[in-house]
Amino acid sequence: MSGGQPAKLRIFSLNCWGIRYLSQHCVQRYEMIGELLSREEHDLALLQEVWSEKDFLFLKKTLASTHPHSHYFKSGVIGSGLAVFSRHRIHDAFLYRFSLNGYPYMLHHGDWFGGKAVGMVIVNICGLTAHVYVTHLHAEYCREKDGYLPHRVVQAWELQQFVRHTSRGADVVILGGDLNMHPQDLGNRLVRAYTGLRDCYTDTDKFDGCDEGVTLIADNPFTNKKELIPFEKGIRIDYILFKGSKTVRVKCESLTTTKGSFPGKPFPFSDHEALSAELLVERTQEAQDNEGTQDGYSPDALPELVDTVTEARMELKVGLHLARRMRHTAGRTGAMGLVLLLLELAIAAVPWLALGTEQPFPRASFYLLGALCLAVLLTALPLYAFHTAQVKALQGAEDQMSLAAGSLQEALRGRATTAGQQGELNSRATPGPLDPEE
Amino acid sequence: MSGGQPAKLRIFSLNCWGIRYLSQHCVQRYEMIGELLSREEHDLALLQEVWSEKDFLFLKKTLASTHPHSHYFKSGVIGSGLAVFSRHRIHDAFLYRFSLNGYPYMLHHGDWFGGKAVGMVIVNICGLTAHVYVTHLHAEYCREKDGYLPHRVVQAWELQQFVRHTSRGADVVILGGDLNMHPQDLGNRLVRAYTGLRDCYTDTDKFDGCDEGVTLIADNPFTNKKELIPFEKGIRIDYILFKGSKTVRVKCESLTTTKGSFPGKPFPFSDHEALSAELLVERTQEAQDNEGTQDGYSPDALPELVDTVTEARMELKVGLHLARRMRHTAGRTGAMGLVLLLLELAIAAVPWLALGTEQPFPRASFYLLGALCLAVLLTALPLYAFHTAQVKALQGAEDQMSLAAGSLQEALRGRATTAGQQGELNSRATPGPLDPEE
Repeated sequence: MSGGQPAKLRIFSLNCWGIRYLSQHCVQRYEMIGELLSREEHDLALLQEVWSEKDFLFLKKTLASTHPHSHYFKSGVIGSGLAVFSRHRIHDAFLYRFSLNGYPYMLHHGDWFGGKAVGMVIVNICGLTAHVYVTHLHAEYCREKDGYLPHRVVQAWELQQFVRHTSRGADVVILGGDLNMHPQDLGNRLVRAYTGLRDCYTDTDKFDGCDEGVTLIADNPFTNKKELIPFEKGIRIDYILFKGSKTVRVKCESLTTTKGSFPGKPFPFSDHEALSAELLVERTQEAQDNEGTQDGYSPDALPELVDTVTEARMELKVGLHLARRMRHTAGRTGAMGLVLLLLELAIAAVPWLALGTEQPFPRASFYLLGALCLAVLLTALPLYAFHTAQVKALQGAEDQMSLAAGSLQEALRGRATTAGQQGELNSRATPGPLDPEE
Repeated sequence: MSGGQPAKLRIFSLNCWGIRYLSQHCVQRYEMIGELLSREEHDLALLQEVWSEKDFLFLKKTLASTHPHSHYFKSGVIGSGLAVFSRHRIHDAFLYRFSLNGYPYMLHHGDWFGGKAVGMVIVNICGLTAHVYVTHLHAEYCREKDGYLPHRVVQAWELQQFVRHTSRGADVVILGGDLNMHPQDLGNRLVRAYTGLRDCYTDTDKFDGCDEGVTLIADNPFTNKKELIPFEKGIRIDYILFKGSKTVRVKCESLTTTKGSFPGKPFPFSDHEALSAELLVERTQEAQDNEGTQDGYSPDALPELVDTVTEARMELKVGLHLARRMRHTAGRTGAMGLVLLLLELAIAAVPWLALGTEQPFPRASFYLLGALCLAVLLTALPLYAFHTAQVKALQGAEDQMSLAAGSLQEALRGRATTAGQQGELNSRATPGPLDPEE
């Protein structure tokens, strides 16, 4: 693209709900998804929950002619479930695994085994470098008592860090995926405010889809109706976000979502609705003011950003308290197992030494108790290590936030002073938002 | 800095060998390190193996006046051991945990528990944005039969990915740390060739330190002499690497290392030698040719880079073979445990149903065998999951390499065609190294 006519970029995002043998009509739905994608020929299709590599390979084969380029992000025990299909050559791919992602012993939730992450691919479209991100955050199983909230906040924090630090130099930045957060949830605000990414749903004049852009609706036969009771219209947790750069203007021309059923099909593509966005991308001569600072955030959003980071830090402190308590419980249980085991060994050793072969304890109970103590000890030990790692990860994110909060506060003070009555003279001595020091 | 006089940047790097109660003279050595750093006042001190947060806090207190800014990177169960002390405000910090890092059951090696990673801090020095990285890769315990080589290659791959993708927009890039690789080792070549980072040791005229820049030497009373037998002069595994940008020229003015002992001190700072580099940083008017492409690598280094990536892929295939075999063993052992357990249950159930209370099996052996089967099953299951995750991580890195190899090959073909006799006409139709498509 060399100025003039804006280029059209069509992006697709869908959580495919691809749990083999468990998700209903999995095989048929992948066939439908493949058919849709090869017909629609989006520039980029960002898929989540493609849990089985076989299904990815099926799509790869189906889309061989329309989307010859693809990448499947492997992570965790099962995989991240993230896949990208592209009409344009993918030059580079990189994956960031979130440091916190639920608990391995919560087998019925299973998020831990997925190794949730954010994947990035770099594509070159019409001479523009696009950094394209696909992600899937930890699920919210109970909004009222959400034990995973600190994990999701850390994931949102790491998501914005990853996008912000790896998107410098990009002409176009696109992020699609299942954030598992409502539009005004803390993590969502954190990602949008910090990266400067704009939401296709709120940023387009032409929207065609479910009311309020929701992507989990009661009308979809696959959704869990009980979970949606508090939300009459459904909830919006799938997003396509975007931004341009100093010299590239991006506009969301239109956004459409599926609406539960699909004409001519017996059932929907997934339990989530699919998103299709049309972006207009244009290289400009004049610098773009609305694209924020080098860091991504707009200077006007600074006060809100400071508040959001403070809120996130509070949430992490709650999470830290919980993680420390769990570590303590694991430690105490392990210690108890060890003490009991030593006691048993002492009982076993002393009569043997003192009274010969006579057994003061029923042999079977004795062995069973010993095995139990050993089992407790061997379970508690890795749990203690696991919860210690959780504490470390939460502390690590909190440390990063504290550092960021300091920088934001300083930038804010700089702006206040600059805007104040001291005028031009002071503004040179006071750090501005982009060059806060020296 | 506004052109003219180059700015001086002094960087320090040391693996502190800070295993509390195990490393010799740990407390005294930290006092020595604190004293050295507060006296020398380097702009940035990049430390590794600061395993205990207490020791970090001790240094933070000691360096409060000379290095008021610091960051400690938390990761894994023990921590990453990485710390940065800076004379300049740290605006942002971000951590990338390597996806592979040894095995949790190799307790005597312990790397897994450290959560090895690469940490980045962003500092503003004299108006220049410096992205500063500190890292520590998996140790090499046996060079002849190095089971961790694939892990280290993946770490080197992820290190170059992280540095390359997060350093766009930086004026100065600095990487310091213990890479646990000899200068010409595969991972080291991968990092240097891909990122375009230059090695202070090979890039300076003024070097003062051990012969050939080695940082693990037999003269140091703390090193393991047996491990150093094949390397008479010692080995060089600690590095300070650097690069500038299109508009900032960086030159390594001098590099010094400690030489085992230190004047006036009873013992050295650590089992590794400390590195001190002096960089000259200068903003230039003309664009820097030697700073490579936007991706970091120099076009001239392309053929070598292609070979290095091919070599890395071969190494990963060896690692994949090993990881799959380990997964297979864990799976088979678990299945055996399950079958035996079911057999026991059947034996226990059938006589009870058929013969009443008579026990055909000695009760104690019966319970013991049952407990053993259960223990085997419960150990094999997480091991199977762990090795599956290892396979996924290796495959993930290999997929990224395969993608990168494709892009590099294409860039190489583009260069060959461009340089060929077809000249200008063809060069427009054929992708060049930076804009390979469309």
